[in-house]
Amino acid sequence: MAKIDQTPAWQALVAHAQQIGKQHLRDMFHSGEDRYRQFSREAAGLRLDLSKQRWQSDTLELLLELAEQAGVPEAIQRLLSGERVNISEDRPALHTALRLPADASLVVDGEDLVPAVHATLSHMDQMVERLHAGQWRGATGKSICDVVNLGVGGSDLGPLMVTHALSDFRPEVTHPVEVHFASTMDGSQLADYLARFNPETTLFVLSSKSFTTIDTLSNANTARDWLVNRLVGAGHQEGVDAELVMHQHFIGVSASPEKMNEWGIAEDHQLEFWEWVGGRYSLWGGIGLPIALVIGMQGFRRLLAGAHSMDHHFQTASMQDNLPVMLALAGIWNNNFLDIRAHSILPYDGRLEYFAAYLEQLEMESNGKSVTNDGDSVDYSTCPVLWGQLGPNAQHAFYQLLHQGTQAVECDFIAPLVRYDDVPDPATREHLMSQHRLTLANCFAQSRVLMLGDDAIADDGPRPEHKRYRGNQPSTTLLLERLTPETLGALIALYEHKVFVQATIWGINPFDQWGVELGKKIANETRDIIEGRQGLDDMDASTRGLIEATWRAGGE
Amino acid sequence: MAKIDQTPAWQALVAHAQQIGKQHLRDMFHSGEDRYRQFSREAAGLRLDLSKQRWQSDTLELLLELAEQAGVPEAIQRLLSGERVNISEDRPALHTALRLPADASLVVDGEDLVPAVHATLSHMDQMVERLHAGQWRGATGKSICDVVNLGVGGSDLGPLMVTHALSDFRPEVTHPVEVHFASTMDGSQLADYLARFNPETTLFVLSSKSFTTIDTLSNANTARDWLVNRLVGAGHQEGVDAELVMHQHFIGVSASPEKMNEWGIAEDHQLEFWEWVGGRYSLWGGIGLPIALVIGMQGFRRLLAGAHSMDHHFQTASMQDNLPVMLALAGIWNNNFLDIRAHSILPYDGRLEYFAAYLEQLEMESNGKSVTNDGDSVDYSTCPVLWGQLGPNAQHAFYQLLHQGTQAVECDFIAPLVRYDDVPDPATREHLMSQHRLTLANCFAQSRVLMLGDDAIADDGPRPEHKRYRGNQPSTTLLLERLTPETLGALIALYEHKVFVQATIWGINPFDQWGVELGKKIANETRDIIEGRQGLDDMDASTRGLIEATWRAGGE
Repeated sequence: MAKIDQTPAWQALVAHAQQIGKQHLRDMFHSGEDRYRQFSREAAGLRLDLSKQRWQSDTLELLLELAEQAGVPEAIQRLLSGERVNISEDRPALHTALRLPADASLVVDGEDLVPAVHATLSHMDQMVERLHAGQWRGATGKSICDVVNLGVGGSDLGPLMVTHALSDFRPEVTHPVEVHFASTMDGSQLADYLARFNPETTLFVLSSKSFTTIDTLSNANTARDWLVNRLVGAGHQEGVDAELVMHQHFIGVSASPEKMNEWGIAEDHQLEFWEWVGGRYSLWGGIGLPIALVIGMQGFRRLLAGAHSMDHHFQTASMQDNLPVMLALAGIWNNNFLDIRAHSILPYDGRLEYFAAYLEQLEMESNGKSVTNDGDSVDYSTCPVLWGQLGPNAQHAFYQLLHQGTQAVECDFIAPLVRYDDVPDPATREHLMSQHRLTLANCFAQSRVLMLGDDAIADDGPRPEHKRYRGNQPSTTLLLERLTPETLGALIALYEHKVFVQATIWGINPFDQWGVELGKKIANETRDIIEGRQGLDDMDASTRGLIEATWRAGGE
Repeated sequence: MAKIDQTPAWQALVAHAQQIGKQHLRDMFHSGEDRYRQFSREAAGLRLDLSKQRWQSDTLELLLELAEQAGVPEAIQRLLSGERVNISEDRPALHTALRLPADASLVVDGEDLVPAVHATLSHMDQMVERLHAGQWRGATGKSICDVVNLGVGGSDLGPLMVTHALSDFRPEVTHPVEVHFASTMDGSQLADYLARFNPETTLFVLSSKSFTTIDTLSNANTARDWLVNRLVGAGHQEGVDAELVMHQHFIGVSASPEKMNEWGIAEDHQLEFWEWVGGRYSLWGGIGLPIALVIGMQGFRRLLAGAHSMDHHFQTASMQDNLPVMLALAGIWNNNFLDIRAHSILPYDGRLEYFAAYLEQLEMESNGKSVTNDGDSVDYSTCPVLWGQLGPNAQHAFYQLLHQGTQAVECDFIAPLVRYDDVPDPATREHLMSQHRLTLANCFAQSRVLMLGDDAIADDGPRPEHKRYRGNQPSTTLLLERLTPETLGALIALYEHKVFVQATIWGINPFDQWGVELGKKIANETRDIIEGRQGLDDMDASTRGLIEATWRAGGE
């Protein structure tokens, strides 16, 4: 297949960008057309406003042509039907199968995957029920109160982001459990929990697709010894041994039952998932256990239903009405034709505090690639640098750079339209609803100023240069009717599919991550040198200097 | 003054970059010189390794010449002596005065500032003492247990970052208080606290330099009504009135005593600071009250001493041994001559979880500017996009893009050499110290792979393109002996001064933030439209569409 930048559609876009690339967004709006009607789309409870992108209807036509030439429509079908789209690892990428309804069917290599997916959901359901009923007891017989998720990357960011976003959706249960996250290999969060929690009532969930992630296993080993030292042996309750502790205080979530067995996770406390689910796409199954513990299995199934509704839209909508495709094309236009290499994610809802961190992994780990599926180096930019922060807070932090700095940045503004109308106390409700209106007003105002610059206000006479705004920063606004399990599921699926569409156009594989393997290998070698105090001679001058400083400090 | 890109030094750097810009970092290390000795520096408990920057000794000479031509040495003296370096607001920027020792003196406009600074510290000291002794009582007579900081931007990020980083340094006190932060204008965090805390024992700190920040005042109004509704009137304790509640449950920190009075903060519960302290440089005084509540005033004074020791180094060291200057020059070289427009901050210590978010504000709000002090538009890049995450976690998230993506990124690796050697339990200590060694090994290994690429491992035969690493991403490594109040103070001051040096070279003012004013104004107008349901006709098509969607949803 020809490299995408050699296709006529790409070349046409290069020429088109030369024509309209210098046109100011403000002037595009002044043209009089109803850009909102022209460039906004709705599906699965989400409204996507792309009118503040620096494009016109003929730009969109050319981009849709590019998507056709890149084979996006066929790629979508291949993804959703279970073909081996993850080429370097020769397997399908079937996170969408995790959210198929029970009565659906998806046959891959002669096997219907849906029954196994729903069997895992039933197993999760039993675990959640038992914990929420206070019937899951620690080794000394007390009900589990605290659940600590040990996982990193895809086994951390998704569950962390969603539990924070949906904590208003806790069901009434007999025995609520508190869910916590420990991810950093340096033991920071874990050390704090061990100092505060009661080992008798604490359960750990070890989440690791490979079950070889050293970050997670380090934390798990520390946790295991902490439990055993505090619950087993002289001076402790009789009949409590290490085996009982292991059985009652650990759940494992992994694609490797052998490794879970080896580590000592009881078989009935293992949640298995599949090689065909990528780590950063895995919150929809067993890795989502912390989510189900916070919002209940019913809530978790609502999350899946929302994502499935976006999957269905992705599969069936035309390219020009397809939200993930449209969002992807806006990014391609900015990145490859307007040379905008930074992308900021700005939710206007404190519940989405971890959404930007989640997308940092989803986008940069998926599409931070520079070799095509044909093994060629790309000559064009792929994934931009993506970062973000809650929008209202970022207004007081880095919006200065967006408004008056020298870097071009694309922004995604995200907000729910309705909030707090269910707060019981009338006075508090009115206060909080008013805070929500203020937040929406800020959201709309900021994207407007970024677009118009100085023109956003009536002429109030000459201003010095340092008080001027150039505008012309493109943005997307994504409105949710409300933030619910369904709309959050759809929102996440929207970005997952956007990433896939962009990868398809760039000709890269969004489902592998070879860029992290070498680092893991070198880290082990480096640790051996630090601990063994030899082998320094093969190192470069900088590494030698840093390790010698470590030795001098006595930190080894 | 000539624009910096017109100076001979700048032109010489452009020419030099054409010569060596294509040279791979790996080859620079193969040249045989001891780059670690050549490019690392030490001061104030910090070691700065700049050897993995893509530069050579003649690069550094040219950069030092650029700093001379930009007047950096004189600018440093002007900053520290209290000249009006904040030109657009015609005032000095004297955060360094906040950390002068009591026996120092700094006369500005005929007045010695040091006594006033230390008077505020004494006032803080009294407040902290009273709270830590359990003698600060709420309106109903119970000791305050929970302190909620209401502030955003500079009144939030600094205290949040430092309290998290130094929570190991809690002193033994009679009555510890828990410190919490609510910053988002949408009420998210606050709503959660109000649902959980006891109003009788909760105190709010209103932190806002101007005391007009609508985000903070919105939260404060909600908090005030919550307290009054729950503590005053029929059915509540007799003798408790709104005035008593206001007196006992609020502390104000601001540069505007008038506005604090107006809002109802009792005079003896006001901590004042000065117009000559910028919000994002303000954690060193009253805004740091939450820090002092966590680590005690003695700890807080250690933080100040660490920062002061960096100030002293900044003022007295030669340019080529000056850590902030050297760090700034590396950034200038990357940004302006190697065209690297993104900068990632990667601490290898979970306690520094909020350090990247803190620097996002410090750097992008300070130097996200494009107009010089002479009112000219710049033709060169200023502040890059800066973002980060805990390094070990980011390894599982966005390092893929650093290793194999298409964007050039400069990285700062930050780690303490010694940790956990004071954990009392020997088994837990050994576990955690081993986790720390693993973390250091990862830190050193990652910067090595980013530098060398494939060459980091012995040749293991041909590999497919998607398993290859190009290397050549420049990085800085910053080592702290240990993370203490002193070294953290020095670390923050290092970045503050780096920002100042870069601003000086770019000819911009790092102490104003005009880029956020227009947004505030438009937000109020937009809120009036949303709530008043009129005025839509003056809006652009996108804003009209978004507001109409809000009306339809009933969110207004």
